[in-house]
Amino acid sequence: MPKPPLPPEADAMLRKPNPAVIATLRKDGSPHTAATWYDWDGSRVLVNMAETRLRLDNMRRDDRVCLTVMDGSSWYRQLTLYGRVVEIADDDDLSGIDRLSQRYTRQPFGNRGTKRVNAWIELDGWYGWENSIAWPTG
Amino acid sequence: MPKPPLPPEADAMLRKPNPAVIATLRKDGSPHTAATWYDWDGSRVLVNMAETRLRLDNMRRDDRVCLTVMDGSSWYRQLTLYGRVVEIADDDDLSGIDRLSQRYTRQPFGNRGTKRVNAWIELDGWYGWENSIAWPTG
Repeated sequence: MPKPPLPPEADAMLRKPNPAVIATLRKDGSPHTAATWYDWDGSRVLVNMAETRLRLDNMRRDDRVCLTVMDGSSWYRQLTLYGRVVEIADDDDLSGIDRLSQRYTRQPFGNRGTKRVNAWIELDGWYGWENSIAWPTG
Repeated sequence: MPKPPLPPEADAMLRKPNPAVIATLRKDGSPHTAATWYDWDGSRVLVNMAETRLRLDNMRRDDRVCLTVMDGSSWYRQLTLYGRVVEIADDDDLSGIDRLSQRYTRQPFGNRGTKRVNAWIELDGWYGWENSIAWPTG
């Protein structure tokens, strides 16, 4: 499996507000998937959840996650990111979800009444695919 | 978690060739995700992989999978399907991958030289989301 740092074309793709799906592990070890907003700061992935979300409990129990990000212009161009949740922090001022909402919708997040939580993910490895062909790994 | 059978609107969504991401479990129990074509026959999900794909090894070892399907017209409309792989069979005549390729591209699958495998998934439960609101469960 290719290791970080990501090559420039993967970094560039992650900087765009693409659709993504994150997998976490349920209590019984089975996988759980959910579509998610994310941000990428060049080394870590930010996701944000309502405090009540199942995947937050999952991350608190087991830090291992996997994301597949699909290029917004063609979902046949994909990055899969393996990683660990290294930080979970209450998003008391909603700055985390606003950051994501601005990125995806260019507006502050609409629902101001729900407690939210940020989770930061460090990468252990990645794969890239385009039309079923693996990306060059650098 | 809502149980099958799926309500009509979920069934109707799954019958369309939507982008999807499937999670399987790696040998160490960590999650693996990959974008995938799928088909839906009203009770089971079909996926198909090149014989060399990591997720096929994962499915042979642990039958527990999860898929998130995003509506092709808006990825904010999503279905997450929990299930088990109940059948894995060589796709010797490529009829499985051709079925998926016709569904997604209206053409037979282009790469005829690679061994492929069908996997059928039975559902244990599902969630639907639209703009972060859970679907009515019927």
